[in-house]
Amino acid sequence: MTTTWFDETLYPFYRQGIRVDGVLFKGQTKFQTVEILQNERLGRVLCLDGVVQTTEGDEFYYHESMTHVGMLAHGRVESVLIIGGADGGILREVLKHPNVKEVVIVDIDAELIDMCKEHLPLHHAGAFDDPRTINLPGDGAAYVAETDKRFDLILVDSTDPQGPGIVLFQAPFFRNCKRVMKKGGLMVTQNGVSFYQQDELRDAHHHRLEVFKNAGAYLSPVPCYVGAHMAFGWASDSMMLPSIPHATIARRLRQSGIETRHYNPEMHAAYFAIPNNLRPLLAEGHERTGLVGLVKAIASRLGRKAKKAAAKAAPKKAAPRKVAAKKPAAKKAPAKKGAARRSAPKAKAKRSAPKGRAAAKRGTKAKKSARSRRS
Amino acid sequence: MTTTWFDETLYPFYRQGIRVDGVLFKGQTKFQTVEILQNERLGRVLCLDGVVQTTEGDEFYYHESMTHVGMLAHGRVESVLIIGGADGGILREVLKHPNVKEVVIVDIDAELIDMCKEHLPLHHAGAFDDPRTINLPGDGAAYVAETDKRFDLILVDSTDPQGPGIVLFQAPFFRNCKRVMKKGGLMVTQNGVSFYQQDELRDAHHHRLEVFKNAGAYLSPVPCYVGAHMAFGWASDSMMLPSIPHATIARRLRQSGIETRHYNPEMHAAYFAIPNNLRPLLAEGHERTGLVGLVKAIASRLGRKAKKAAAKAAPKKAAPRKVAAKKPAAKKAPAKKGAARRSAPKAKAKRSAPKGRAAAKRGTKAKKSARSRRS
Repeated sequence: MTTTWFDETLYPFYRQGIRVDGVLFKGQTKFQTVEILQNERLGRVLCLDGVVQTTEGDEFYYHESMTHVGMLAHGRVESVLIIGGADGGILREVLKHPNVKEVVIVDIDAELIDMCKEHLPLHHAGAFDDPRTINLPGDGAAYVAETDKRFDLILVDSTDPQGPGIVLFQAPFFRNCKRVMKKGGLMVTQNGVSFYQQDELRDAHHHRLEVFKNAGAYLSPVPCYVGAHMAFGWASDSMMLPSIPHATIARRLRQSGIETRHYNPEMHAAYFAIPNNLRPLLAEGHERTGLVGLVKAIASRLGRKAKKAAAKAAPKKAAPRKVAAKKPAAKKAPAKKGAARRSAPKAKAKRSAPKGRAAAKRGTKAKKSARSRRS
Repeated sequence: MTTTWFDETLYPFYRQGIRVDGVLFKGQTKFQTVEILQNERLGRVLCLDGVVQTTEGDEFYYHESMTHVGMLAHGRVESVLIIGGADGGILREVLKHPNVKEVVIVDIDAELIDMCKEHLPLHHAGAFDDPRTINLPGDGAAYVAETDKRFDLILVDSTDPQGPGIVLFQAPFFRNCKRVMKKGGLMVTQNGVSFYQQDELRDAHHHRLEVFKNAGAYLSPVPCYVGAHMAFGWASDSMMLPSIPHATIARRLRQSGIETRHYNPEMHAAYFAIPNNLRPLLAEGHERTGLVGLVKAIASRLGRKAKKAAAKAAPKKAAPRKVAAKKPAAKKAPAKKGAARRSAPKAKAKRSAPKGRAAAKRGTKAKKSARSRRS
């Protein structure tokens, strides 16, 4: 018997392959091709435009670490906005918390939601039928620009920061998220895998820092998102996520009464450790803890504003700006690899502007690509 | 131009593929086939019998987290035994520590060491020429059974716990490791990826507990060892690794003066957080901290001895043994998935006894399979 493989097309130089033990569904929505496959170890596997989105076998790694960190760091979340998340996994985890009164979920692909409802029952577990759920299929970026609603927590279970999804990793979107955030609120976004998508992590982090007082990333590996840790970006005007005491998180988890398969307070703390090779990408955010951090943050903010003004006035003189802003970070945590890659514009250009028909197609086929793709 | 892929054959149901941008070396030793490939993102990639062993792009994740945890947890390591590790990456990291006076490295495949010396210069970085290195190619299990030397730290950069390498995950080998360990010493072994190789982690952990007073595992993801965290097993009669204060580790790292690209004291602490789904596999080891842990450990040790005696006396009456030993752990950390998988002997049998010629071949082709394979 011949073995059939589903080989992912996320990167040109690397692929993962899932053995196809059955095809449960194959279809096309207005936005993307949808395949739901069966695999002995991973159970049902959802693929969009050639990229693995989520599997029954490992989804709890992703959905729990994305949801509960923000929920418990805040501690009194009543209203949640989910952008993307058609499979319902994030929705299911949010609704576990008894304090939650309302969850608005905005995924651009209404057809995909219906397919997931039918074929991924373990993902949503009936969450779309919960009376607290408001399902508003549509463009997430447009929603945060227009709505009058306000939220304690925004979870962006989005596309990769390339192709049409790129707006969800940029400052204008973050500004609108801030606009619809209640006082004391925060946002958490998926930010790619920390080994293969480092440039995207750095860029999105810097955009979050343009908008919010505090921003950073935390890390948790997810088996089918290959490339060491999955990165989750976070941002808040009032909260410094890594500083919340372990005992507080543990108490809140106990009080919530929820059960988890992966997440626990020790993992929560562990997510915030950043390896040396990633520190330069996140340096500004992670330096900002305690009083020293506060002073540095203010200095950095003033510096950024001054730099922006200077850049506007004389765009040709932007060179010294880089020196002032980036040097201390690079010094602090040596990461030869990362630094080397960042200073190799050729390699980067190759990745972000692939050649040929197949490659061009790939450019718009990113992990989670359809979850909140803009038309 | 056609793209050529190297598709790994580690699992029957899942594979990773590395794009082959060049073949630097292809050969055969007495023990295995060796391929050294070139990849745009990963640099040089060493594959043995169809399985990715190490890449220039991500090796520091593995070698640093395997080496420095034990080195700094101990704090005064002078003599080290490495079993496996033909590529020299572990050796290189050990020799960074100025306190180290002698490192014995025992890899079964002398030809492979020569190939790595020539083709993976970034891995060994000249470490085999260091005057502190004693390179003794041979059978690691036989070495620990026979040598008169004693070591502060034993690092097992070994085969997977299947095929000929299985002995390196069993009690007799651990007993010999204990025999050649100095007072206050410890051992650290690679123990597979925590998502796809959970049974192997549980079994090896229990064997370490049979021999050592303290044992456990710590977790760190490695990009090309796909399946969430890589697990490292540790064991010691005198040390409880997760209990060593963060400040102690940080001070020792500072005093050592070494530079790392991934490892840091915060990551060190984070490695010891265990997600709920893995806790039942490691429960006995991880409960044993503090006074309560000590009491439990003694009770459990006595219990195990009694169980063994009972099993010997009446092998048919082994059932109540399971109930007594496993129930409390399962209760403590609910992990439906893990439990479900463990109680599905059909699936397990499939994995451990693959059918057909290709599958049978696969059974002996495990990650790191050649590093210390016994002939």
